[in-house]
Amino acid sequence: MASSLLTRQLAVSLQQNLRLAAPGSRYVSKTATKTVSEFEYDTPSMKTAVPGPKSQELMRQLGEIQNVGAIHFFCNYEESRGNYLVDVDGNRMLDVYTQISSIPIGYNHPALMKVMTNPNNMSAFVNRPALGILPPENFPDKVTESLLTIAPSGMTRVQTMACGSCSNENAFKSMFIWYRNKERGDTNPSTEEIDSCMINQSPGCPDLSILSFMGAFHGRTLGCLATTHSKAIHKLDIPAFDWPIAPFPKLQYPLEEFARENAQEEARCLEEVEDLIVKWRQKGKPVAGIVIEPIQAEGGDNHASPDFFSKLRNIARKHGCAFHVDEVQTGGGATGKFWAHEHWGLDDPADVVSFSKKMLTGGYYHRDELQADKPYRIFNTWMGDPSKNLFLSEVLNVIRRENLLEEVTRSGKALMQGLYALQTQYPHILSRARGQGTFCAIDACDDATRNSIMMKARNKGAFLGSCGEKSIRFRPSLIFKEYHVHQLMNILNDVLTEQK
Amino acid sequence: MASSLLTRQLAVSLQQNLRLAAPGSRYVSKTATKTVSEFEYDTPSMKTAVPGPKSQELMRQLGEIQNVGAIHFFCNYEESRGNYLVDVDGNRMLDVYTQISSIPIGYNHPALMKVMTNPNNMSAFVNRPALGILPPENFPDKVTESLLTIAPSGMTRVQTMACGSCSNENAFKSMFIWYRNKERGDTNPSTEEIDSCMINQSPGCPDLSILSFMGAFHGRTLGCLATTHSKAIHKLDIPAFDWPIAPFPKLQYPLEEFARENAQEEARCLEEVEDLIVKWRQKGKPVAGIVIEPIQAEGGDNHASPDFFSKLRNIARKHGCAFHVDEVQTGGGATGKFWAHEHWGLDDPADVVSFSKKMLTGGYYHRDELQADKPYRIFNTWMGDPSKNLFLSEVLNVIRRENLLEEVTRSGKALMQGLYALQTQYPHILSRARGQGTFCAIDACDDATRNSIMMKARNKGAFLGSCGEKSIRFRPSLIFKEYHVHQLMNILNDVLTEQK
Repeated sequence: MASSLLTRQLAVSLQQNLRLAAPGSRYVSKTATKTVSEFEYDTPSMKTAVPGPKSQELMRQLGEIQNVGAIHFFCNYEESRGNYLVDVDGNRMLDVYTQISSIPIGYNHPALMKVMTNPNNMSAFVNRPALGILPPENFPDKVTESLLTIAPSGMTRVQTMACGSCSNENAFKSMFIWYRNKERGDTNPSTEEIDSCMINQSPGCPDLSILSFMGAFHGRTLGCLATTHSKAIHKLDIPAFDWPIAPFPKLQYPLEEFARENAQEEARCLEEVEDLIVKWRQKGKPVAGIVIEPIQAEGGDNHASPDFFSKLRNIARKHGCAFHVDEVQTGGGATGKFWAHEHWGLDDPADVVSFSKKMLTGGYYHRDELQADKPYRIFNTWMGDPSKNLFLSEVLNVIRRENLLEEVTRSGKALMQGLYALQTQYPHILSRARGQGTFCAIDACDDATRNSIMMKARNKGAFLGSCGEKSIRFRPSLIFKEYHVHQLMNILNDVLTEQK
Repeated sequence: MASSLLTRQLAVSLQQNLRLAAPGSRYVSKTATKTVSEFEYDTPSMKTAVPGPKSQELMRQLGEIQNVGAIHFFCNYEESRGNYLVDVDGNRMLDVYTQISSIPIGYNHPALMKVMTNPNNMSAFVNRPALGILPPENFPDKVTESLLTIAPSGMTRVQTMACGSCSNENAFKSMFIWYRNKERGDTNPSTEEIDSCMINQSPGCPDLSILSFMGAFHGRTLGCLATTHSKAIHKLDIPAFDWPIAPFPKLQYPLEEFARENAQEEARCLEEVEDLIVKWRQKGKPVAGIVIEPIQAEGGDNHASPDFFSKLRNIARKHGCAFHVDEVQTGGGATGKFWAHEHWGLDDPADVVSFSKKMLTGGYYHRDELQADKPYRIFNTWMGDPSKNLFLSEVLNVIRRENLLEEVTRSGKALMQGLYALQTQYPHILSRARGQGTFCAIDACDDATRNSIMMKARNKGAFLGSCGEKSIRFRPSLIFKEYHVHQLMNILNDVLTEQK
């Protein structure tokens, strides 16, 4: 398979147009040999259908211990390199999903391997500290030279956490604390508050709420889950808080053809947000914070305009609600800027920005006012993991040294061009190509077709993720180059030709 | 300081009694030179008051980025060894708190260093997988040879998670799902359930509850926090679920003197549990699960008898509630058995057992019926971290090879003897010495005295933790030997002599 791909690429090597000229034409990258990282493979290479026999046997084994219904296949991470994920059956796939968008600079990046072999780093791995009480000597420096160099506009404070859900849970808590302190003014919590909070009752545990959006995904722990509204299977049977849920704009594509309709749709959603804030205040459950993803990822790669976010931020300010931008999936560079919210062009984009995934450590930035007033209010045993900060530091170095945000912008353009070309060519199958940087998606005509395309692509060597009801999401790492886009497009083109 | 301690020890080397014979007498360990691990120090060594000037300067720096009110001091983890934690000012303390009970076999244990230098392990650190969809080849084997070898009675299934809170949140979710599936029988979820869950409403998000106990600590994310009732500062201003809270027995010490009163107290609490289950069912918020710590740790090291837990387990069974034993702090060997609940002697001790901290990975074991019926119901991006499993495997090897559970039992006896002796000698200051293995605690007469004892002990080279209103908790690692107990007792004796 790999050699046949290569042969076909060579066979059309005279073709220099980056666009799909006609069905069956191939992308050829002129720059492949120049930009390929020496540590990675150059093509996919398939030996079996996926999952292959070894994966299936391991699935049977693990099935004795866990529910394995979500497992795609088992991986050979030692043999994986860069953009290529190798499975236990020896199949080597171009990875356009990257562990649910969580591998920033590809597999086994030499810079990260070096972190591991540096003896100065060993102690950070072997002795996981309780960061909130006994941080290591280099912790302030490490945070300053890594997390703070990429802090969102207006933020100089950051709290690390172990994962995305814990980041959002604690971000919510910091908004609740901030909101109540604001209401309380200079007075101390009352005895009634202190006593009632111990038994889960107001006023100590107040009836405050977080406003979220339909289609949102903010995690699966009970606080986060009350703001997650992407798929029923995530929420069914789990008790939830009665918190307000606003509609997220459903934009029509192509955007330039539906400018007026989309502006109206965004205005409708913003109006609903204000209505809900008023309604929940009247219900006695005031909105302490609004949480939103810059691009709803799990919910179907739903975008909104910078104008929408700017107005939403103003609504939050006007009503005294904190504004929390959840960049767990969008953060880390895949949109071509380090944070997706930078595309809005606001000086004061948010009160809280949470992150995880490609950042390797969870956590959240916040404005000064959002810092808890007392110790132990935002706290847990580990509060992150300094060994993950070491990796993050090195990832940031690589991003800067290799200008990866520019690369992402370039690859992203090629990816969008490719997706536009595909949907032009297969309009009965594909629609709504959309994206920012390489953070892209396209819709299939239905769920079954989407899944069939993804399975076939996988068997041809491109591993993709899904989102929403019928979308394919593209989540390559930041070292995904134009010629990887071309490999992907060749595979998708083959799949779609068969699909017809 | 260290040399003076040593000198004093030598000076009394003829004294062989392990008990405190008189005020000012010293413990001397005859076996110290034989059992001291070659990799660790032999005594504390203090250079400054703690926090020293370097710690204070780093606190100032980090204070620009985070709330540092909970920080004790900054650590030099590279120089820390075994039971001795070294701070940035060169102070070397006997660590009896171990990162809030989370360092299983001491600092920089050679066996764990080896894990880091084994090239076969590098990929597990550098490429963190999305375990729920793309596990590494060795995952079933690694889980089988580590977590499953120590599975609680009746459990062959385990789900890893990143931290204690995520473990408990997901354990709660698995109990809710199990409970609703039981109610639903063979029928599928209704359209009404599917639709209503997306907007946080019942019946899709049902009004189910988890019964917890006053004084409990199960974590700080919103689901966990609704079952946590140890300190107001953890809960104030955070919305909570209206879930039932039962009293946890308040035992009187010494136990043998208050057998009848304590039995009555436990009966009273159990009665209240049953009342609450009935009451919450009538309120339309049935109890899906009961969660309890075998020893309430954060809440003040509160113990109950095996009989109490056995009856509680029966009440759960009788009322169709799942029984969740939270071993996040008690698990991993410190009580002298691998799980504290093993002291109850039950064949079927629980439906769910959660863990984290000394296990290095979070997660929970569960009975077969508690496994979610469909994929993605219990799910998140990382679902743990295989690099932590590698460390856990090695920790388990060390525990077996060095018979650490026996050692813990031996050191624990010495520790309890020491605490009994101290409270006999200083009855106006200390009371209620209690513990299992080295998982011990003692009460001071009040909060201020407790804190003063801890500060003074720290400045003399013993780092301790607090819990509850006025308790000192002892949480050494599993390699805490009898002669470490003696060092600790010498320091406490010095402190208490001054305290008088």
